[in-house]
Order: sequence, then structure tokens, then C-alpha cells
Amino acid sequence: MIVIMSSKAGEERIQEIVSIIEKHEVQAHVSKGEDKTVIGIIGKFDPKLGEHLRQLSGVEQVVKISKSYKLASRDFHPANTVIKLKGVEIGGEELTVMGGPCAVESPEQIDEIARLVKAAGGQVLRGGAFKPRTGPYSFQGVGVEGLKMMKEAGDKHGLLTITEVMTPEYVDICAEYADILQVGTRNMQNFDLLRKLGTIQTPVLLKRGFSATYDEFLNAAEYILAGGNPNVMLCERGIRTFETYTRNTLDLSAIPVLQSLSHLPVISDPSHGTGRRELVEPMAKASVAAGANGLIIEMHTDPDNSMTGDGVQSLFPDQFARLLQDFEKLAPLFGKRFDVAKQAVHA
Amino acid sequence: MIVIMSSKAGEERIQEIVSIIEKHEVQAHVSKGEDKTVIGIIGKFDPKLGEHLRQLSGVEQVVKISKSYKLASRDFHPANTVIKLKGVEIGGEELTVMGGPCAVESPEQIDEIARLVKAAGGQVLRGGAFKPRTGPYSFQGVGVEGLKMMKEAGDKHGLLTITEVMTPEYVDICAEYADILQVGTRNMQNFDLLRKLGTIQTPVLLKRGFSATYDEFLNAAEYILAGGNPNVMLCERGIRTFETYTRNTLDLSAIPVLQSLSHLPVISDPSHGTGRRELVEPMAKASVAAGANGLIIEMHTDPDNSMTGDGVQSLFPDQFARLLQDFEKLAPLFGKRFDVAKQAVHA
Amino acid sequence: MIVIMSSKAGEERIQEIVSIIEKHEVQAHVSKGEDKTVIGIIGKFDPKLGEHLRQLSGVEQVVKISKSYKLASRDFHPANTVIKLKGVEIGGEELTVMGGPCAVESPEQIDEIARLVKAAGGQVLRGGAFKPRTGPYSFQGVGVEGLKMMKEAGDKHGLLTITEVMTPEYVDICAEYADILQVGTRNMQNFDLLRKLGTIQTPVLLKRGFSATYDEFLNAAEYILAGGNPNVMLCERGIRTFETYTRNTLDLSAIPVLQSLSHLPVISDPSHGTGRRELVEPMAKASVAAGANGLIIEMHTDPDNSMTGDGVQSLFPDQFARLLQDFEKLAPLFGKRFDVAKQAVHA
Amino acid sequence: MIVIMSSKAGEERIQEIVSIIEKHEVQAHVSKGEDKTVIGIIGKFDPKLGEHLRQLSGVEQVVKISKSYKLASRDFHPANTVIKLKGVEIGGEELTVMGGPCAVESPEQIDEIARLVKAAGGQVLRGGAFKPRTGPYSFQGVGVEGLKMMKEAGDKHGLLTITEVMTPEYVDICAEYADILQVGTRNMQNFDLLRKLGTIQTPVLLKRGFSATYDEFLNAAEYILAGGNPNVMLCERGIRTFETYTRNTLDLSAIPVLQSLSHLPVISDPSHGTGRRELVEPMAKASVAAGANGLIIEMHTDPDNSMTGDGVQSLFPDQFARLLQDFEKLAPLFGKRFDVAKQAVHA
Repeated sequence: MIVIMSSKAGEERIQEIVSIIEKHEVQAHVSKGEDKTVIGIIGKFDPKLGEHLRQLSGVEQVVKISKSYKLASRDFHPANTVIKLKGVEIGGEELTVMGGPCAVESPEQIDEIARLVKAAGGQVLRGGAFKPRTGPYSFQGVGVEGLKMMKEAGDKHGLLTITEVMTPEYVDICAEYADILQVGTRNMQNFDLLRKLGTIQTPVLLKRGFSATYDEFLNAAEYILAGGNPNVMLCERGIRTFETYTRNTLDLSAIPVLQSLSHLPVISDPSHGTGRRELVEPMAKASVAAGANGLIIEMHTDPDNSMTGDGVQSLFPDQFARLLQDFEKLAPLFGKRFDVAKQAVHA
Repeated sequence: MIVIMSSKAGEERIQEIVSIIEKHEVQAHVSKGEDKTVIGIIGKFDPKLGEHLRQLSGVEQVVKISKSYKLASRDFHPANTVIKLKGVEIGGEELTVMGGPCAVESPEQIDEIARLVKAAGGQVLRGGAFKPRTGPYSFQGVGVEGLKMMKEAGDKHGLLTITEVMTPEYVDICAEYADILQVGTRNMQNFDLLRKLGTIQTPVLLKRGFSATYDEFLNAAEYILAGGNPNVMLCERGIRTFETYTRNTLDLSAIPVLQSLSHLPVISDPSHGTGRRELVEPMAKASVAAGANGLIIEMHTDPDNSMTGDGVQSLFPDQFARLLQDFEKLAPLFGKRFDVAKQAVHA
Repeated sequence: MIVIMSSKAGEERIQEIVSIIEKHEVQAHVSKGEDKTVIGIIGKFDPKLGEHLRQLSGVEQVVKISKSYKLASRDFHPANTVIKLKGVEIGGEELTVMGGPCAVESPEQIDEIARLVKAAGGQVLRGGAFKPRTGPYSFQGVGVEGLKMMKEAGDKHGLLTITEVMTPEYVDICAEYADILQVGTRNMQNFDLLRKLGTIQTPVLLKRGFSATYDEFLNAAEYILAGGNPNVMLCERGIRTFETYTRNTLDLSAIPVLQSLSHLPVISDPSHGTGRRELVEPMAKASVAAGANGLIIEMHTDPDNSMTGDGVQSLFPDQFARLLQDFEKLAPLFGKRFDVAKQAVHA
Repeated sequence: MIVIMSSKAGEERIQEIVSIIEKHEVQAHVSKGEDKTVIGIIGKFDPKLGEHLRQLSGVEQVVKISKSYKLASRDFHPANTVIKLKGVEIGGEELTVMGGPCAVESPEQIDEIARLVKAAGGQVLRGGAFKPRTGPYSFQGVGVEGLKMMKEAGDKHGLLTITEVMTPEYVDICAEYADILQVGTRNMQNFDLLRKLGTIQTPVLLKRGFSATYDEFLNAAEYILAGGNPNVMLCERGIRTFETYTRNTLDLSAIPVLQSLSHLPVISDPSHGTGRRELVEPMAKASVAAGANGLIIEMHTDPDNSMTGDGVQSLFPDQFARLLQDFEKLAPLFGKRFDVAKQAVHA
């Protein structure tokens, strides 16, 4: 059960309501968003308590939610969440395209790629400064310098930026330089990282763990939401299966399922989801057809020499541009729009 | 290595070539198609032998194929296979839609559903007469009577028919009544069934085993092709994963992957692939966007009372009709066409 | 619900009981075993009907079973099933060891291996005459000749024999030559094959499908039992996972789980379950510790030149012999016995 | 390639060797253990460089290692790693048993359970103070207070203690109170946590991610080893599969495989690996038979009321004691010993 407080209710009234709740052998969990405060009631459901709370002053609404995640659920928030960020709306009518290299390598590299992303009509520049790598001896990213390079390139070309944050202590510095923070697949259940991200308002793109169920995925999002940060996007990026031809198996069912269970925007990552350049185009288009709110796509000017060795899944710039042109025709069939020229002119 | 014989080469010449091949410590595997005969050479690759064979009379072409499947591979047959059947072309420019109930239940049921499939623009009527069931006490289908009911309904409404065949001994009777024979997911590696299907010319829709790799899938198709039946379609119908929210996880990457490895048409089954009615529409459209040559979709006039209990994944007739109308707009973006009126008028 | 008929009840009385049952809008499914006849009642559970049947003459017992499989369930048959075959008891106090090559290759090969299996203390000779192969061009087994070679070797050395049967039409000939028939992993849900095996009394070793759940596995066994053949063994042979280092992942939990859900003997196959020779010994011992009733192990005198290419998972004869010696010490810790000398002397 | 420095070589000499290495367009990665310093050379293998280094003073040995993990590999360290801790040797001839509740709940609870673990012959007390939970509203552990309770109980009863650490900033405080730190399955690739654990000498039990491959698992261990902490144990705790009857599928092949690829001790967790109390005993014994160096087993005095809800997989104290008695007989068959009385008397 969740109690949504009226925006007029002050801190004192919230505490009073909490006290009332806690007399009933349940726990009260307060989430303060920018607009409104929500009190989650954790424990045995008591319909009489709900009835009682509904009548108290300061209480706007009381909602029963039977799932283990509350704030992430569509029962709690029936309308789509739309994240607004410097003129870009993620989760609304616009299809969002995030493009860029696996890793930031140099100022020249990221500047040139940013230019190409913008020219193709993308809204967000992706790039890793801190790279999670299976082994300790692989290239681990260029670090804070990479954050600065990305910010400069993003500002110059009029793009938002997204970068991965791997540990709670780097959340603040990453949030200083990037517009969106990404939680990688290996960290989906790094609960301290999620809790830390709940304390800021910077939007978070949460990647699905490569063997996470939908329920676990939404519970991970719940950690961020419960901390008070409502700006969460869910990202399907492929699950691990027995198939070895592809790097992962992109689970496109996740898109309509997550959108029915939750109000959060759903982004698809066909690059990691397939691990093969030639599959990015068909799976990107299939993602749009499945209802994705956006895509995050690897693009590199020299994929064969990328520093992470992930070039094999990166599009060449001209492939990226052609794909975005096709989005322009495809998006309207799915209630979205994507306007290459509008973005490109913006530059 | 594969030797494609000239269509003028007679039986005698073929046997001579086989004798020449078998002198080289490899096996010769003869597949007689309607148009041409192909001799597969199984064993260690010997470039000199290839050079020699190429120069012999009666030999049209010699192709080196390193994959374990030969006839199914695009190396062997670079152009798409298009299966032509009573005016319907599967694998060509037309998007093929197969619709109908999980199981044939009565003449009235299958007649009414056939009428609705036709009116909506579908080309093929699906329906099971023999049902593979996990347990022996579940409804096992109405048997041969069901074949007759389907044929009657298909003929009346101008639809092709497809039905599942489960065992070699029923292949002939099923082929007598149905236009396309389906091999179910549990039988993908029922090799005697595949061999038997190789001896006829009736088109076969081969469903991917629910944990089969792409390589195993194409090798299963190879069994049918190697027997001499070139009319094989591949059907992605969802793989088994850890996710329990959906019945299976529809692997749409399979569509572009199979089309790049093979020349055979690829059909998607979003009904079994998700097991949930509300996911059929988005995943059907995503299948088209991923490049599918066709779809097989469950539709039932009274899904809540279907005899197999699979109604939960069946569309209602009006949902089915609306989906096909949307295909009309979607297909052209992917180099296909789908014309509701043309089909419907045909009726 | 299951009605167990008294052994004195004749055919006529059974039919009368069936008629009584069918008046209640449920189906009666008659399974005739050698000792007793069981009538499974499929449909909505009706406690009054059970009460009524219990009082009728000829009825020995009425048992309520809520699982989808009935005869395979321990609720139906609380004691372990022990299959007795020419002095060997499978499922009882003795640990059963089945050893031999993947495929029968020649009379000399199978004779020499039979001698070694016997000398090491094994009770059953395994060997494939018909081989299920992923692709059509791989060695498919030597066929009926192989059955004869095996029978001769088994008879000569005092071993039972087990061989795989792949299709209903070969059941009778395989049963003529072999003591136990094996259903391979790809055929676990080849329902017509299972039905045919239900019509004979020859013991069947049913291998788990490589992605089958426990429930599906027991339902597959139910097909055989429901046909009237009570002599079924379950074989865990590894499931498909994302791990590529091993060929399969041997799921040893299956052993205690299947033994708690069912009364049927459970055999472990560490050869296919790992696909690597060096893992056979530890996983064979772990199988005994997990409670297996027996093991089926590949052994070959010349594994590097085996005709199936499966030699990499075959033990050398001396490894096989040492392993069986270790079983002698290990088995008693798990309530079983294994006596190398007794078996060997028998020869 | 790895350069093992002589224990006499000082800091200065190490730096000189590093300088020599870095002239060859490769990276030098220095790991300082307590006994010796190892310089990993990351980059293209150059046999001439190896030859050259081998001859330099201060260099004890140069080893070529082709795997992505170096220090974790048996090529690098052929003998078993034995971790010695207050008289307990993990990875040697003794079988190590770690027992205790999922979560520390109160001083009385943990004291009583510690007494029972000791009396049964266990060497290590397990218990969670910080609990990783799928959802934010579940019980998250009692925190630092729990660490203190565990330490007190361990000291009083003569047991080592192990507890989970979830984030880099808690490593120091956890290491202050516990003898062994556990990295949970969800954190196996929390690389900053692994790096932090590499900077201390406290032994680490690293749990396999529930969908991690062996290669990824060993690379995760490599992060800790490369930081300079050689005291790492690997823990198999079940992988995620399609089976829903068990919570996870315990992959016992992992034990012999990891022991052949690596020198690190391997511990099995049959509690999480099955999620069902009745499967813990058979799978614990099977683990010993597969060669495990130790076990970590949940035991609770009142499992039905455990605060984490994981009681369903916890043994009752008498089951735990009987199991350890059986280990006494079983361990010697596998080259290990386990002595209930010795441990119990110790108390």
C-alpha cells in the first residue's frame, strides 16, 4: 500500500502520518520526490488502515500494490513517466537515440563521433569513461579525463551525454559531467550503487542484468525510486542463453512487458544485445516495432581499432545515419516521432 | 563440397560421378530434387578432387561449404528459396500470414475461423489435428477427422492449410489433406520423421526446438533437404529461458541470423513465443521489422473455452484483423507487401 | 484419482468399473500391468465418486493424485520400483553400472569391450546401433547388424545389453535383441515412440531432454507407464546451459528430486553430462553420493578413433575398472552395494 | 607472461625490471603478495622478451600463461593454495565446514547457533550482517551490530567467522570483525569491490555469479589476486536455469573444473544451490565426492521464523550434526579428513 501525500502537506504532517501508520505493525517508507512525497507501507496489507488513511488531511491518495516493487509499478503511477532534459523528452512521443563509442578514447575521437551522432539526428552521446571489464588486465577506460572530453563534445554539438558509473563513490563526479548515468548489466544488483543513485536527481539508465528476471529488474529500479530519484529508464540489453552465435539474446518481449508492468521508459540496446554489427539494424527496427522509447547504439569511426575490442558490434557512421533516417518513417507507425532534420539543424 | 549436376545429366552419369568421388575416400550423398540433383561430398576436403570434378561432363558447379549443413546453407543456394503453392509465394515479396486455432475442435469451429482468417487477409489456415501434449491425459487432438474438417474449411474459403505431423507413419495421410506439414518444437530432432518428410515434396514448416542452437536447427532442416524435399520453412517459436512471466522467450535475432546463414524462408510464431495474448501484437510487428517472411498466429473465436487450454495466447478475431491491417502499412518498410483486400476478395 | 483394481478382478469387472466412472463426466484411462490393472480418472476431482468407488467389489484402492503425472508419482506407488532382469536388480540395493562404447563398431570391438566391462564388475553393456546425429552426414550407426553383435557379446560375457531406439517401427526389433531400450534426450517427447514402448514389457531407460523440466520428464515417463509398461528408469544426462567448457551441465539435484517425486530408478550419465573424460570420475562418484541407482558410462578401447567422435568423453578401460573399484567402497555409505568380484566371477 | 621476482629483490630492482618490460610496448602489472612479487606482462606475447627477463638478476621465474586470468591459473601456481587461519587450513587435507544462519538476528540467536556449529564439528560460523536483497523493502540485515555479535559468538566458541561485504567502503569494518569476507553472487563482477579486497590480506570467499561462466569467475578472482591478496576461495552456489522446482541448479562439475584450471580452494554451497532443505544433505555429500574443499551450509534453530525468509533452505541443528558425522566417513574416500570430535573438543 502506498500513501501519496498532497503537495501542500508539510514535513510535520508527513511525520504525523508516518506515526499513525507505524502504530499498525507495519513499516513506513518515505520517498521524497521533487513534486510529491510518497509513503510506502511495507508489511501485511490491512484494508481498514487504508480506509482510515484515505480520510486524513494531507493525504491525496492511497493505492494498493501487491507486487514487491511499488513505486516502479504502473498501479502506482498509471501514466508514462516522461523524463525532460534540456529539451529532450525521454518516454514521451519522441523516439530517443543515444549513440557513440563503447569507450571515450581521445578528445578528437569523441568530438568527431559527437558531430556524426548529431548530424544523423541523435539526441544523446554515449561513451564510457570507466569501463567494467571481465578481467583486470583489459583496458579500463580513461577515467575522469574521459568525462571531461565527453562533456565538451556534448556541449559543443548540442547533445546530452550518458556514461556508466560503476561505484557509489564516483556517482557525484559522474553526475557533474554527464546528463544521464548508466548502471551496467553487472551492477544491476549493486544495491549500494543503486541507493546512492536514489539520493540524486540525475536520470539513470538501468541496464538489465544479463540473467535478471523482469521482477528483479523492476525491484532494482525500485531501489533508486525509493531513494527519491524518479528519473529512471530501463534498458533491455540481451540475456545470456546457450546460443553462442550471438553475444547475448536480445529479449524484445521485455519491452512490452516492462511497459505494462511499469511506467518507466524502456530503452533497447541492440549493440550489446547481439554483439554483431550486421544484426544491429534489424534488431533496432524490431525494438521500435516492439514499442521501445529509445535506443542506445554503438557507433565508431574506426571500429576495427576500438580500444575495448567491442568494435565488432559498432556501426560505421554511415550505417548509423541510414538507420536513423529509417526511424523517421518507422516511428510514426508506433505512435512516436523521430525527426532527423530537426535534431541535425539544432547542432 | 557439393556437386551440382546439370539437369541434362541422366541417372547413369550421376552414378558415374558418384563412383569417381568414392574412389577418393569420401562419401557421396545424392539428393534428388525436382529440378536438379546434388551430390554432397562428406569427408575431408580435397581441393584437387573439386578441380577434377568441375571439369567433368554433367557437372554444372562445384561449391565448397565448410558448415556441417550443406543444402540449407546460403553458400550452396545464394538466392532466397521461394515456395510457391496455389498462388501463394512464401519467402518472396509477400508477407505470409497463417492463422487459426491451436486445435481443430469441430467443423463449425474451423469453418468460422477459416472465414475470419480469410476476411482478415490471411493466406493459410493453421489448426492441429494431432496435438503433442506434455502429459498423456491431456486432449490429444481429434485426429484424422480433424484433417478432413480443415481441408474442407480451407477449400471453401480459399486458404492453404497447415497442420502438425508427429510421427513418420502419419506423414502420408497428413500430406493428403494439408498443404503444409508442421514439425513441432519437440520433434525438431526426431530424425526419422525428418527423413520421411524428405521423401515427399509437400512443404514443411520446421519449428525450432525450444533449446536448439541455430546450427542444430539448420542441421535438422538439412535432414529434410538431403532427402530431396527442398520446400522447407524455418519457424522461430521462442526458446526456453529462466523467465517465467512469458511461456518462452521469442528470439527475434534468429530471423536475421537464419536468413544470413540460409536461403530458407523464416516464419515467426509470436503466440507460442510469448504465451500471452497481449504480447502477440507487439512481437508480431517486431518480427516483421526483424525481417520475417511470415507469421503463424493463433486466433480463436472463443479462446477461454479452447480445448487445449492454450486460449490465453490466442487473439480474438477482431484483434487478428486489426493486426493484419497494420501489416499492410508496416510490410512495405521492410521490402514486403501485404494486401488485406486482395486476399479478402479472393475468398 | 487412480483406482487400483484387485488382481482377482477380471476383464468384465474392470469394464463395469469403467462404465461407472464414465457416468460422472470424467475419462477413465485403463493401464494393464502384469500384476495389476490401474484405472486413471482424468478430469475434475470428485471426492464423492472416490468414496463410492472405494466400496465397490474388485476395487483394491483409490488414490488421489494432484500432479499431472499419476502412475509415475510416488503418491501412487510409495515403494521404490525395482526392475529385475536376469539376476540384476535395478533400483534396489545394488548399484547398477552400464558401460560400453558410444557406438557398436565391429564384432571384435564390442566383444573386447564387453569382456572389459564384465571384468571390471559392470552388469550391463551399452552400445548404440542406431545413432541420433545432429546432421545427416555424420555416422548414423551400423543398424540391425549392431544389435546382433551386441547381443552376442552380451550373451558371451554374461551382461545385459542396452541400446537406443529412435522410432516406433524399430521398437520390436530392438526389443528382440536388447534387454533394455534407451530413449535418447532428443526423443524424450517423441510421444508416439513413448506410446509404442508402453505396449511392451521390455525395460526402458528414458533420458531427460536436455532442456526438460522435472515435471516434463515425469510426464514423458507417464506416457510409457500409462501404456502398461511399468519398467521405466529415468536418466539424468546433463542440461543445456550457457557454459561452453562442458558439453552439458550434469544436474545432480535431479537425482534426489526425481526420487522424491517418483518411485522409478534414477540413473546418471556422467559421460554425456560433462563431455570430458577427466570429469567422468568425479561426477560419477558425486552421482553415487547424490543417491543414484546406477550409472551409464562410456568406455572405449581406442577412444581417439571412435566412429562417433565422442571418444573425448569415453574412459579408457583401466580408468573404468579403477572407478568401479572405488564404487565398491563408496556405495555402502549410501545404502547400496557394488561387488566387483561377484560380477567378474560370474563371467 | 608472468615474471616472478626473487624474494630478495628489493623495490628498486622491481622498478628496474618494470622499466625494462615497458620498453617493449607491453604493460607491466605489479602484484605484491606477502611472500613474493609478481609482475604480469599484459600485451602481445614476445618470446624473446621472456628469454631476456629470465636471465636478469632478481627474476626467479618467467611463466607463459595464455589464459586471460594469470595469477588464478594453475599454470602460474601448480600447487594447491592452502589458506591458513588460526589453525584451520582451507584448501588442504581438511574438509572445511562453514555453518550458520542466513542472517544474524540477535546475540542469543548467533551464540546458540555458534555453539551448535562447534559441537557438530564445524570450523567456521557464517552469518549475514549486511544482506543483499532483491527489493528495497525486505529485511536488509542488522548492520555493524551484527558484525559484533558474530565476532563475540565466534570468539567464545572457537570458530572462525565469515560474513558478506557488499560495498568497498564497508570492507575495512567487515575485515575488522570477521575472519573471512564473502562476496555475494550479485557482486561477483562488482569490480571496485574486488579491487578493494585486493588491497587487504583477509581471505575472501568469492561466490560465483548465478550466470557466470568459469572463465568469468576466475577473472573475477584475478581482480583480487592482482591487487595483492592471494587468499581467495571460489564458491559454487548454483546457477540460474529454466528449472523452477529448485531455487538454483547446483553445478557440481564446477568443482573439478575449477580445481583443474586454478589452484584456489573450491567451496560448495548446497543451501543456496538448491533452495530446499531436503536437498542439502544429498548435494552436500555429492559436493564432497566431486572433490570440494569445503562446504558452506545454512543452519538455523528456528528456520520457519528466520528474518530473511530463507529458512526453507536451512537445516535444523540435528540434521546439520548428522551430516557432519557422515562427512567423517565420506571425506577419507576423497583424500580429505574431517574429525567431528577434534573440532568439538576444541571448543
